[in-house]
Order: sequence, then C-alpha cells, then structure tokens
Amino acid sequence: MTPQAAYDELLRRSREEVLLRSCAAVLEWDELTYMPPGGVTGRANQLAYLAGLEHDRATDPRLGELLATVEGSKLVADADDLPAVNVREIRRSYDRLTRLPRKLVEELARLVPLAQQQWSTSRQEADFASFRPWLEKIVALKRQEADCIGFAAEPYDALLEDYEPGTRTQDIVGLFGSLRDELAGLVRAIGQSRKRIKSAILRRTYAADSQQSFGREVASALGFDFERGRVDQAVHPFCTQIGMSDCRIAIRYSTNNFSDAFFSLLHEVGHGLYDQGLDPAHDGTPMGTVTSVGLSESQARLWENLVGRSLPFWKYFFPRARQAFPEALGKVSLGDFHAAINQVGPSLNRVQADEVTYNLHILIRFELERDLVKGDLSVADLPAAWNDAYKRTLGIVPANDAEGCLQDGHWSEGLIGYFPTYTLGNLFAAQLFAKARAELGNLDQAFAHGQFAGLLDWLRDQVYRHGSRYPAPRLIERASGAKPDHRPLIQGLREKYGELYGI
Amino acid sequence: MTPQAAYDELLRRSREEVLLRSCAAVLEWDELTYMPPGGVTGRANQLAYLAGLEHDRATDPRLGELLATVEGSKLVADADDLPAVNVREIRRSYDRLTRLPRKLVEELARLVPLAQQQWSTSRQEADFASFRPWLEKIVALKRQEADCIGFAAEPYDALLEDYEPGTRTQDIVGLFGSLRDELAGLVRAIGQSRKRIKSAILRRTYAADSQQSFGREVASALGFDFERGRVDQAVHPFCTQIGMSDCRIAIRYSTNNFSDAFFSLLHEVGHGLYDQGLDPAHDGTPMGTVTSVGLSESQARLWENLVGRSLPFWKYFFPRARQAFPEALGKVSLGDFHAAINQVGPSLNRVQADEVTYNLHILIRFELERDLVKGDLSVADLPAAWNDAYKRTLGIVPANDAEGCLQDGHWSEGLIGYFPTYTLGNLFAAQLFAKARAELGNLDQAFAHGQFAGLLDWLRDQVYRHGSRYPAPRLIERASGAKPDHRPLIQGLREKYGELYGI
Repeated sequence: MTPQAAYDELLRRSREEVLLRSCAAVLEWDELTYMPPGGVTGRANQLAYLAGLEHDRATDPRLGELLATVEGSKLVADADDLPAVNVREIRRSYDRLTRLPRKLVEELARLVPLAQQQWSTSRQEADFASFRPWLEKIVALKRQEADCIGFAAEPYDALLEDYEPGTRTQDIVGLFGSLRDELAGLVRAIGQSRKRIKSAILRRTYAADSQQSFGREVASALGFDFERGRVDQAVHPFCTQIGMSDCRIAIRYSTNNFSDAFFSLLHEVGHGLYDQGLDPAHDGTPMGTVTSVGLSESQARLWENLVGRSLPFWKYFFPRARQAFPEALGKVSLGDFHAAINQVGPSLNRVQADEVTYNLHILIRFELERDLVKGDLSVADLPAAWNDAYKRTLGIVPANDAEGCLQDGHWSEGLIGYFPTYTLGNLFAAQLFAKARAELGNLDQAFAHGQFAGLLDWLRDQVYRHGSRYPAPRLIERASGAKPDHRPLIQGLREKYGELYGI
Repeated sequence: MTPQAAYDELLRRSREEVLLRSCAAVLEWDELTYMPPGGVTGRANQLAYLAGLEHDRATDPRLGELLATVEGSKLVADADDLPAVNVREIRRSYDRLTRLPRKLVEELARLVPLAQQQWSTSRQEADFASFRPWLEKIVALKRQEADCIGFAAEPYDALLEDYEPGTRTQDIVGLFGSLRDELAGLVRAIGQSRKRIKSAILRRTYAADSQQSFGREVASALGFDFERGRVDQAVHPFCTQIGMSDCRIAIRYSTNNFSDAFFSLLHEVGHGLYDQGLDPAHDGTPMGTVTSVGLSESQARLWENLVGRSLPFWKYFFPRARQAFPEALGKVSLGDFHAAINQVGPSLNRVQADEVTYNLHILIRFELERDLVKGDLSVADLPAAWNDAYKRTLGIVPANDAEGCLQDGHWSEGLIGYFPTYTLGNLFAAQLFAKARAELGNLDQAFAHGQFAGLLDWLRDQVYRHGSRYPAPRLIERASGAKPDHRPLIQGLREKYGELYGI
C-alpha cells in the first residue's frame, strides 16, 4: 500500500469515527435537554454501546499499520501542514486509546449518564451523600484510566493531556502560582478601595422569554449562525458540536438574575463561534477540530468577558436591554449597569464569579481534583476540603454542598483534569485580545456601533480556521507573538478594574 | 454450540441491534423537532452510517448459523412461546434483510432526511415540481427493494410485508373492497340526511399553550406516562419509541383549529400506550416489540376515535376544555361540541378527516402507491391522478398540491406500503373495542367519570404485553374471537352516525 493510499484510508476511518462520535453527541445533548427521566437507563446503554464501537474503531490495529505506512514518508514532510497534522493527531489519539481497555471505556460511558442524573438530583437536594458513591466510582475509573495511559510525574498528567495536549501538571502549577499571587494583590486592593459597586439591579425580575429573545439578538449580532446552531435550556450551560453545521448551546434561565443566563450564553456562543469557524473542507478529520479545550475556553472567555463585559459593548446593547427589560432597567444608567456586571467580590459560585476572582475558583478545583486523583484526598473528605479551600482562598464558606462541591457537573461527567483549561483559556484570551486590538485599531468604536465582524474575522483567520494545525501553545505564540503568559491577563484586569474601582 | 447457547447469543445480538436502531431513532426524532436547518447533511450522513452498521449486524452470516442451530431443537417446540417467537421473528428479519444490498440500505438512509427536508419546503410552497425528483428517487429505490426481497404476485407485496407481516396486497384489496361499498352507502345516507352539523366552533381561536396543557392533561388521564415519554412539536405528527421507557410524541398546533392537534395527540398517545405497555422483561428482543404497524395503528385509532370522539369521553372532558378555552367554548353546549367533532363530509385532508370518510383517503393512497410501485403510474402524473381520485371518490379537488399529494410525509420518509395499515388499524380497533365493551360492561359510565384504566388494563392484557408473540391477524382473532373483518367497523359507524345524523 502506498503512503497516499494509507493516508486516504486513515481519513476515511477518521470521518467514520467522527460520525459515530457525533451520534453520541446528539444522544448526550438530548439527555441534558429533553429526555424524559425514565429514559436514563436506556440512554446509558446506548452511549456505552456507541462508546464501545468507537473504541473498537479507534484502536483497530489496522490503524497502527496505516500510520506506520504514512509516517516517515515524504507525505508528512511539512510538519505544520496536511497531511502531517492529521497523521500526528491520529497517532496521538491511537496511542492514547490503545492503552485503554474496552471494558473501562464502556464502564465509564455507562456510568456517566446515571452519575449525571444523580448529580442533578443531589445538587437540587444539596445532598452530597447520595452523590458520593457515584463520584467515588468515577474517580476510581479515572485513576484507572490514568494508570493505563501512563504518566511521567503524576497521574493527573495523563488526564490533563486529554484536554490540553502537551501541557503538564507542573506547567499549570507554574502559571497558576504566578497568577495566584498577582490576583491576591488585586483582590486585596479592590477590597480596600473606597468605591463600592452595587449589583442588586441584576437580581430584579427578568422574564425568561425576554432573556431568551434578547440573548438570541446578541448572539446573532456577535456572529452566531442560527441556521447552523440553536440554543436550548439545561440544568448546566454547555455547548456541543453535533457537526460542522450543527452547534448546540444550552442555558439555564433564572428570572431573578440577569447575569447568570446572559453571560453563560456569551460564554457558550464563544465556543460556538470557534466551532462554526472551523474549515468545512476538513470536516471529519483532525484539521477540522479545535486544537485544545483551553483554546476553546479562551474563545468562550474572550466573548463572554473581554467583549461582553466591556463598556463599548454595552454602549450598543444597553438601550436594547432596556427595551427588553423596561421594568428592571428603565431607570438604570449605562455606567451603573456596566459597573454592576463587573462587580468584584468573593463568591461561592464559579459560573457567576467576576473576572478577577474567577481564576481562584479554578485554582481550588484544580488542587482538589489533583489530590483526588493522586489519592491524597478521599471523596468522603471532599466537601470539607472544598469548604476549607474557599475559606482560605476567598474567605467565605458555602452554606451547603449545592453551593459548594456539588455546583459543577464536570466530575459527574467524568471530566477530571478539565478545570485548568478555564484558566488557560483566560490567559490565552487576554493574549489574543491584546494582539487583536493592537492590529485592528479601535475595536471600542466598532463594538459601540454593534460591529463585531472585524474581531470575528481576525479570530477566524488567526485561530478558528486552523483547527488542530498547531498545538495550543504554538498557536498562541504564532497569533500573539508570545508564549503562554499570565501577564497580559493581569495587565488587562489591572487596567479595567483600576478604573472601575479607582485604584 | 448448544441450542441454548446459540439462542442466548441471538438475544445478545438482538439487544445490540435494537440499541443501534434506538440511536438512529433519537437522531430521527431530533431531525424532526429541534435540529437546525444546516444540520441536515450531517444528519443524513450519520443516519446512513448507522443504517449501514445496523445492516451489517442484521445480515451477519453468523446469525444464520445461530438460527440454524436453534431451529428444529426442543427449545422452539412451543410455537407461541419463548424462545420460538423470538427465533421466528429474528429469522423473518434476517431473511428479509440478507436480500437487501448494503448499498441500497445506505442510499435510502442518506436520501430520506434530504427528501424529508425538501418535502417540508415543497409542501409549504405547494410546489410539487421541486419534490418530484426526490420522490422519483425514493420510488425507484423502493421498487429496487421489492425486487431484492422478492414477491409472488406483485412488488407491493414485498413492501407491505415490512409493516404487516403475513398480509398480502390481495387481502387488502378484498377487505378494502367490502369496506368501500359500505362506506359509500353510509356517506350517501349522511349526505342525504336533513340534519346538518356545524363545526365552525372548532376553528375559533385556541391558544397553542392552552392546547398544549389541555392535551397534556388528557394524555395523562388516558394513562400516558410522562416520566417515560414527552410531547414536542413537529411539522407532521408522529410517535417514536426511543426505548421502552422513552416514548416521544410530536404534534403540530394550529391556533385556529382545535381538532387538528387534539386528535393527532390522542392518535399518537394511542401508539404510545401500546409502546409503554410492552413487557420490559423482553426489552431489546422481538417479544418486546409491537407485532405490526396495523396493530399499532389500531391503538392510535381506538384512543383517538372510539374513545376520544365519544360522548362519554366529552361528558368528562368538555367542562375542562371550556375552562382551558373559555372564549372559544364558553357558550357552546356539550351536544353541539360532540356533534362538531364528529361532523362527516368530504374533505381533502386525511389527518383531519372524519371517521366515516377517513378510510376513503387511505383507499386512494393505497391505490396510487400500489400503481407507483407497479410502474402503472409515473411520479410526474401523481398530482393529476391524486386529484382525479379525490374527485371520483369524494367529489372534491385540491386547490393545490399542498392540499393534495404533498400533504403526507410518508413517501418522503420512504414509507411506501404503509398507508393500508391505517385502515387495517381501524378494522382491528373496532373489533377489539366491541369485545372490550362486551367483557367490561359499562365503559360509557367509566369514561364519563374520567376513568380509562379499565379499558387500558384490558388492552394491556389482551394486546400490549404480548409484543410480537402473535402475528396481528392471530392476535385479533384471539382477543376479539373473530378473524379480521370489516363488519364491526361498519356496525359501529352505523350506530354512532345513525344517531348523530338521524338516519
């Protein structure tokens, strides 16, 4: 078989695998949005079955033979271009997955829908005890997964690698360490400022259907294509890509909180813009997928915060928000509104946290899950450790576990090693946004006129269309001119909050 | 391998196939309810891929070996019991599917979502020309399917067999012939009656959300379990079984028509009650599935018409309907309302047709699709033939093809040979309902008190729990005491409409 024929066969198989995974994505979306409660056992069986099929295909020894035929040939001479990129990524996935026994993969797939359902109930009832055995199973299986994959320094590396290829736990520890010190200083300075920002206006009554239509207007203006996507409701906000032309977002509306759904929506729209900006020519192949979870998070955080919490953005949208919510916002000034959505203060909820303290929520989760995986922390001790970390880091303690360690669904989904990608995303976002401003000139004025296409086009060109051509750190360096770095984030926060809090 | 081991392996494979099919069912449901328009090509690829996998499994030669090992053994001695029933049905499916080339199966699966999307647009625009090439492809593929399956008398037999095992085109011709004569007489008598029933009250304004909540109340009262099912919106009403505990109904609401959505709902709820009444012990095996489409239709028509258009039913629900729609129904009497929902007259729309003329709509479709498959009618000539048949049979002609041959989605879904099952369903329903009344005594009084559990339990016991234990004609004979027969239907219609129209 020629290297070209082997490569063609690799791509054919890749497209099949992507199709199979996309079927599972529809089932998962449905499970989180519309599925009746009774469907959960059947859904678990369906997903386990598909996961098994997918695993069989992804670990077929024939893949190893095909890879060996292409690798080393002239076809892959240019490492940054096709077909080398696709071959590199197929190899990475093949090596990872051939280390996982089919039984473990199916077990996790079957466990997750049940654990998610239990998490949802346990969270509603603020009852950690009922979720504990499920989380214990998940942690045990994820540790088993790490052992099967193998790792140099610690098991957490093996899990992190799945979301952030090429990044190690120690890299995170380094970046997060610098960040923690700077953030602590900023939070202290804000706490000591005499300026007090009030946010009670955000907790007035906001009708769910008005939130929905206003959100849709904003999402469209930012460039989200509703012909190729939609927005539904779910317990926990998410964005999933069913296919290149089918991007699904879900949001949770609360009628006495404006920020909750709105900024979740912008966050998920950010993921969606990346997904919708991938190159259709590479559908079903690695070149047609996002390069890392952290980079996808960077787009979520960029559109949510750097765009969506900026003053120019609201210069355009605040008059519209007032029309949508005349009773809540009719007598509020733009300045007070902008300050309210940027109020900084210790809080218990990650999703609702302000930009400054947000990364502290991530640091807490990172350290706890790292310890769970290492075996330094037992699931039974998690609620106490969580509360303790919040007390130490933010000076506040959850009243119950729904406000505490049950607030996020990630662990119930088997997503361990995922949380650091949020903070990596914030770092990447700050670097990319600073560069875009430097290159595009006056973005503020464009935003104030409701024009976001300039930024979107720049991001499509610099980031989205490349798919997984470059691993995240290289893509960041290429697009922003510097390696991953905590300083642009800190500088951006200092400027913005210096002004808002007069420090 | 022992017969028992072979049987166990057959069941394991059956459960896997059912899981795979149920994944496709979720994708199809989503396509018809929530999928964004851009998703259609990806969805077609997903469904084609799953159909191919399913076909590979269903036609694996190993199945033939396993069947041969079990067949003729003592295990299958009792033909009406396990494991003989499962073996019989697995054999039937295996023999059918091994005759279909994988390429044909994939082609149909890929074609259907695109044809459905085009049908939906063409129907909206009343533009048959844009749908014509799609229907031509579908008819060609279905004729190819019939040729692959084989048939004794005519190709339509091979397609009909898929929905109504053991029934031949000539059986239908016989039953429908007797029915046509009787119905013609009844329609004539009603037309000549001096009593005129008005139904304009049904076309007053009925808010969609009130229709939704009233429908939900009724569906629950009939016994539909919303823990194991749900109701959504779609262009064409349907009911699909994702799994034993996940039954999905979709309805189309029109704010100026009460009957349209309401009786569609009862119809789909009837399907759903059958699905929800299957025995969970047989999940994933033939014993856990409905025995024929016609029998499933019989339940749809029984709950829609024999229950839902009866006077006792509305004695209970009319006061509730008045509360739900005070402006439309506040001043309407029960008698006028009951008459309105039973108005008989020639109409163009099958779904909205009354009980008496309904079967004439089916006869038209049956004859047209039979001719399409035989090659006696070309797709190009379909609109004219359709209009001609309506003129001959019902004396009226559609103003356009949206009112005519574009009104039903069945053909765009590849469902050819399916329409007769509606009339078979009406025949079966009348036989079963007459027997239930004979055995259970005063059902009228129960209905008038909102009690439907007596009837539901009888049907569960006589029909639902048996799954595919008996082919439909045998099950009908067993439950009602007589072979499939047109007389109970005619008798029921004569009694009811004799009274309503004073004839």
